[in-house]
Amino acid sequence: MPKALLTDLYELTMAYSYFKRGVNTRAVFDLFVRPPVPYRRFLVFAGLESVLTYLESLRFEDEDLAYLDSLGLFDRGFLDYLAGFRFTGDVWSVAEGEIVFPGEPLITVEAPRIEAQIVETYLLNTVNYETLIASKAARVLLAAGPDASVVDFSPRRDHGEDAAMKAARSSYLAGFEGTSNTQAGQRFGIPVVGTMAHSYVMSFPDELTAFRAFAEDHPSPILLIDTYDTLTGLEHAIQVARELEAKGRRLVGVRLDSGDLAALSRRVRARLDEAGLPYVKIFVSGDLDEYKIRDFKAAGGTAWGYGVGTRLGTSYDLPALGGVYKLVMDAEGPRIKKSPGKVTLPGQKQVWRGPEGDVVSLRHEVHPGRPLLAQVMEEGRRRVPPPDLAALRQRTREALFGLPEELRIIDRPEAPDYPVAVSPALLELQKNTRSGSSPV
Amino acid sequence: MPKALLTDLYELTMAYSYFKRGVNTRAVFDLFVRPPVPYRRFLVFAGLESVLTYLESLRFEDEDLAYLDSLGLFDRGFLDYLAGFRFTGDVWSVAEGEIVFPGEPLITVEAPRIEAQIVETYLLNTVNYETLIASKAARVLLAAGPDASVVDFSPRRDHGEDAAMKAARSSYLAGFEGTSNTQAGQRFGIPVVGTMAHSYVMSFPDELTAFRAFAEDHPSPILLIDTYDTLTGLEHAIQVARELEAKGRRLVGVRLDSGDLAALSRRVRARLDEAGLPYVKIFVSGDLDEYKIRDFKAAGGTAWGYGVGTRLGTSYDLPALGGVYKLVMDAEGPRIKKSPGKVTLPGQKQVWRGPEGDVVSLRHEVHPGRPLLAQVMEEGRRRVPPPDLAALRQRTREALFGLPEELRIIDRPEAPDYPVAVSPALLELQKNTRSGSSPV
Repeated sequence: MPKALLTDLYELTMAYSYFKRGVNTRAVFDLFVRPPVPYRRFLVFAGLESVLTYLESLRFEDEDLAYLDSLGLFDRGFLDYLAGFRFTGDVWSVAEGEIVFPGEPLITVEAPRIEAQIVETYLLNTVNYETLIASKAARVLLAAGPDASVVDFSPRRDHGEDAAMKAARSSYLAGFEGTSNTQAGQRFGIPVVGTMAHSYVMSFPDELTAFRAFAEDHPSPILLIDTYDTLTGLEHAIQVARELEAKGRRLVGVRLDSGDLAALSRRVRARLDEAGLPYVKIFVSGDLDEYKIRDFKAAGGTAWGYGVGTRLGTSYDLPALGGVYKLVMDAEGPRIKKSPGKVTLPGQKQVWRGPEGDVVSLRHEVHPGRPLLAQVMEEGRRRVPPPDLAALRQRTREALFGLPEELRIIDRPEAPDYPVAVSPALLELQKNTRSGSSPV
Repeated sequence: MPKALLTDLYELTMAYSYFKRGVNTRAVFDLFVRPPVPYRRFLVFAGLESVLTYLESLRFEDEDLAYLDSLGLFDRGFLDYLAGFRFTGDVWSVAEGEIVFPGEPLITVEAPRIEAQIVETYLLNTVNYETLIASKAARVLLAAGPDASVVDFSPRRDHGEDAAMKAARSSYLAGFEGTSNTQAGQRFGIPVVGTMAHSYVMSFPDELTAFRAFAEDHPSPILLIDTYDTLTGLEHAIQVARELEAKGRRLVGVRLDSGDLAALSRRVRARLDEAGLPYVKIFVSGDLDEYKIRDFKAAGGTAWGYGVGTRLGTSYDLPALGGVYKLVMDAEGPRIKKSPGKVTLPGQKQVWRGPEGDVVSLRHEVHPGRPLLAQVMEEGRRRVPPPDLAALRQRTREALFGLPEELRIIDRPEAPDYPVAVSPALLELQKNTRSGSSPV
């Protein structure tokens, strides 16, 4: 459970100032990803469940208040206020798994200003990462194709424990088949998968003995065949497959983790077929991502499944999303920020997915298509139950593989962007909104 | 506290096989970063405290055992074994904050094979990330120079909650001054810092009113002057500084977060000095990293301090370290893995920091210089108390700024690498170690 103090100190110093001055009327903040986003033709939104859980459970504990007191920045009145702090606002959000684009509001928070301010850091922390990974996973899936089984092998390279949990969930949400992360299986009900490590093979007198032992101890064995020499390892795996057949069992697959994966996979496939083992699957791993899977397939590589680790869980080619959280309305009316290159859209908004692209509009407008933002929290209480993750995953997979060709390509920066328009009424409001009452 | 199930499933399926077969004699694993590591001339080791805490507290709870049972992969005997599982091994490690190089063993785990295997995933997860961030922070510090104050502003872009905590600790360990992460201040005793957001300025009728309010409510105010127009914001800050002087107080500084930072900083500095406010500091932020700070200074930028966020906490130019955990010895003697391009060094080792570079040797050898690896855990209990983080930080800072010129440069890949030699005795052992007893 995230703690209340997992926040930038300035959220609290600003809140303190608002508290002392009674500046606590309702404020509206939009969370969105600032364009442009390099290397991504679209994003897959994720993180809402983390956000709702956080907002519902947010409390300052006694030890937190004692620590804040020790900083010498806050008075007793504010600490007493924090002791009773609850998030009481409304939240609008896109659904998890939805395909979205930079500039579109993903979450709108409407709450007394202090509440809306204090939650900023956590909301950005979790939505930035979960959306980053769901978006990366979607690209890996598009490269692998609808018939491949892709799983998350990232825990050892993810940025800490929470990242490992969120990488597993976000990649599954996008359409992965499972994860190696046992705790993610436990917490989220994601199928857990695993083969063996080189150290297992080395823990037995020889490779064949290791393979026999693993096949005997595991109901659906996949054998890692590259510890010593891949083609010799393959012969050992074939021998084990035949011994399993004699017992009425089947070897599920072999895993390749090093060398020229495309060339090896072709040789391994041909040899397995020749050996009368067409059902033995080839599973490939080793620093994979969407680019390497594309190249593997282009080089004639053949695989039933892929294990994707480091480059998925760290979103290696784009390790951060520029998600921001901006004031768009308060008691004074619509607000915008006009720093150079960072102009925002004012007011409460809606996003419409129409036949000719998306339209960002004011909330009360109606445009062709379906609205992406819905109210998910009212006065601090969620209005919707936690989603069925497996069902969300299925819906996201279908949406991904149904995307138009120009969005499914994983590179080619010259390809046209998906059209995201701003409605005339919203543009008019932006034009007429003064940036504060600054005498500039 | 990390949970036992935060592990790749294959650690458990391998452990199950070892358990059933009584393959549980002592095994030795080395954790090291596989060379080459792009964009880094050295690494700063971090993560040992997380490792020791994990190893001392590792337990499988009832709910974990129930979940594992539900997978249908394990028998009751193994689940009972896990119910009583404790880590009872010995651990050797480099000290946190030590400057290290790829290929050098950073942690050596010696334990019954099942114990040594099960801990692999967590050890890699935490050491890979903590070392990644300490190493990135070191580069940022070298670019900023010994007189600059550099702080962590990364929580909103770090990969989840745990990453935010570890980014704060690792960057402080490397020599940062503080963090914006309040919880990291609470847990690790790191100084917490913060200024204000644009939304604060926008929450008042005008910028000057906002600045006056913040200065009144904060004992050491730093004013963000770029919400509307930076040079107008500066005039407002100057006015507030004069009002504070009249009350016997001082404005601490102004923050620049957008625009041409180098040019603006010069103008702001000149104007502050001209206004008789030489003590007002300039604090710079906005997608900074070591490269941007170098360029800022090269362009004549002037700053007292830097807030570094996204590119620090995600180690943007190198989002993952290739740390691995390899079997190097067991009851059969020294072991190596010979996959193409992935040959390992066998046996129990030591690393010597000598006058002509580092030497990786067998543990019993003696070489000139000081040994980097020391035993930190014996039979599952730590032999050393938790370090004084502030003292470690001071030592690391001094080591960093005392590095030879060729290691302090932040780019120039053509510069010579620091020499890391392998001792003749270890090379001889590697040559004579057969890769398992495979008939290859």
